[in-house]
Amino acid sequence: MGEKNRQWVLARRPDGHRYADAVELVDGETPDLADGEVLVRNIYFSLDAGTRMWMGPREDSYSPATPLGSPVVSTVLGSVVASRHPDFRSGDLVRAYGQWSDFSVVRPDEVYAERVTRRLADPRQHLGVFGANGWTAYLGVLEYGAAQPGETFVVSAASGVTGALAGQIAKLHGCRVVGITGSAAKSAWLTGELGFDAAIDRGAGDLERALRETCPGGVDVYFDNVGGPVLDSVLGNMALFGRIALCGLLVHYDHDEALPGPARFDQILMKRLTVRGFFSPDFYHRGPDLNRSMRPWYDEGKLRMAFDVTPGIENTLDAYAKLFTGDKIGKSLVQVSDPDD
Amino acid sequence: MGEKNRQWVLARRPDGHRYADAVELVDGETPDLADGEVLVRNIYFSLDAGTRMWMGPREDSYSPATPLGSPVVSTVLGSVVASRHPDFRSGDLVRAYGQWSDFSVVRPDEVYAERVTRRLADPRQHLGVFGANGWTAYLGVLEYGAAQPGETFVVSAASGVTGALAGQIAKLHGCRVVGITGSAAKSAWLTGELGFDAAIDRGAGDLERALRETCPGGVDVYFDNVGGPVLDSVLGNMALFGRIALCGLLVHYDHDEALPGPARFDQILMKRLTVRGFFSPDFYHRGPDLNRSMRPWYDEGKLRMAFDVTPGIENTLDAYAKLFTGDKIGKSLVQVSDPDD
Repeated sequence: MGEKNRQWVLARRPDGHRYADAVELVDGETPDLADGEVLVRNIYFSLDAGTRMWMGPREDSYSPATPLGSPVVSTVLGSVVASRHPDFRSGDLVRAYGQWSDFSVVRPDEVYAERVTRRLADPRQHLGVFGANGWTAYLGVLEYGAAQPGETFVVSAASGVTGALAGQIAKLHGCRVVGITGSAAKSAWLTGELGFDAAIDRGAGDLERALRETCPGGVDVYFDNVGGPVLDSVLGNMALFGRIALCGLLVHYDHDEALPGPARFDQILMKRLTVRGFFSPDFYHRGPDLNRSMRPWYDEGKLRMAFDVTPGIENTLDAYAKLFTGDKIGKSLVQVSDPDD
Repeated sequence: MGEKNRQWVLARRPDGHRYADAVELVDGETPDLADGEVLVRNIYFSLDAGTRMWMGPREDSYSPATPLGSPVVSTVLGSVVASRHPDFRSGDLVRAYGQWSDFSVVRPDEVYAERVTRRLADPRQHLGVFGANGWTAYLGVLEYGAAQPGETFVVSAASGVTGALAGQIAKLHGCRVVGITGSAAKSAWLTGELGFDAAIDRGAGDLERALRETCPGGVDVYFDNVGGPVLDSVLGNMALFGRIALCGLLVHYDHDEALPGPARFDQILMKRLTVRGFFSPDFYHRGPDLNRSMRPWYDEGKLRMAFDVTPGIENTLDAYAKLFTGDKIGKSLVQVSDPDD
């Protein structure tokens, strides 16, 4: 086809924290499609913490490492511009595992790809409330965390997209909701805009003590995105028979070697906790049902999601760095074309 | 009443590993009973790894620390010799939280005490198959571990009482059962006497590799008594959606400070595991039902338990040390009087 297609390619494995040196923006062209392939003009691609992990060499993660020389993979929202797959036609809006690039080549029989409706006023929500983050939040609260009305629910990375959705869903379910976040401004956003009952700025002092004061009856459900010292602080404050829904270990992703586990691991026994790891591709097939469950909340304005949209593929790394510095609120997207094209 | 009553008393908190210096065998007399109290002549008292933890000062364990100057607490089997409680009469055989002593003073309204049948040919089984160890094994396999027929089931401390019962129950349930134990002799006992499919001597080499070779499809259920490096080795070998039933953290009990958690903690996320801590007093009330479930297996000789009985209260510490050195097979009891008296 030969349209210009800029791509972020993994040129080498990251050296320590310096993942930015590992990727390069390469000029290329869209390829001729093979049978079963679909060419998607990306509107948005998603910036996800897990992507950092797949740049590394680890083979024991939940997704395989990205091969050297390959484009960096992420979820994209875009329009089909050419298709050699019978279920996809030009003009379809699709959400798929694509690439950090202008165009994604998608093989729906091998990787996730799904047509989504154009009748959503804010199409970004296909990558927010009505996508993997929303499903992770919904199932993490109601199934993996088994939150009950009246219980105390704590979520880490609470101003991140999954955390913010999880907190809102727990609140709609009747829990008392406490968010752990990275600044006073984010704390104010959680309690002021999203209706959290309380928020804790984890940088403001002794987190374990702050949790004890904010959750005097203990934490019944902890929705964790982060792991590390925050998890340890919460472990020391769990209520008997509490549940930990573990959908991310952000602090681990920037390391190729396994880090020590939580020092308070013994609390799992002492407090008779249940800890469950979960990961959205395991329940993509439930997406349509989950979206139907969340849609009324969304339509009533009770389930809100902010976006941090960076225009321009060339600005991807600056935007990506904010995932680890915490200098953003909501879902991080790079916009590479116009939704109305 | 004034009968001679020797008691092990916690004289001071243990200094590091030297718990033996912390307790003293004191000559005393049985007290006059207060209202609601029952005096039990101990036949056996139980030696349990958790007792070591309660000698220390930690307040975040699942049971409170033993107060200084108090007798060391454990489960006992004995005969009621005097009662000021309406539900207990002289001559009753009881299992109760009592003391490391000739006689236990029990307050059934405050701590666990239950009359048990004299119609069990081997009364020691009230502290084995048909007591807390049996219940822990049964629920750990079938409920907390949710083992399914055909799955690969691994148990640590497999020659200990709970581990040996758990492995037999998993086998009766149709699992492939692998025990991790501390010597070649114990391995032979597990496969030869108890019918385990395989056993691994954890001292014989690289445990993670041995598990990979013995469980090439991964570990579906891990029943853990131990924590520590053994847990790490198993975490590296868990199958997707595996379950870890955690009923003990033996390696932690001899330390007053929290130890680092498992280095492979991230596998809980990567493999989407479920980890559940559990503790028998939470399900003592289900004991009669659980015993009815296990009785047919026992009567058919399919559920067996060895005992390591040490006669003489003065030999308690030597017997207790074997819990940590691993120099015994089966349930550790001290016998202080004759069952037929």
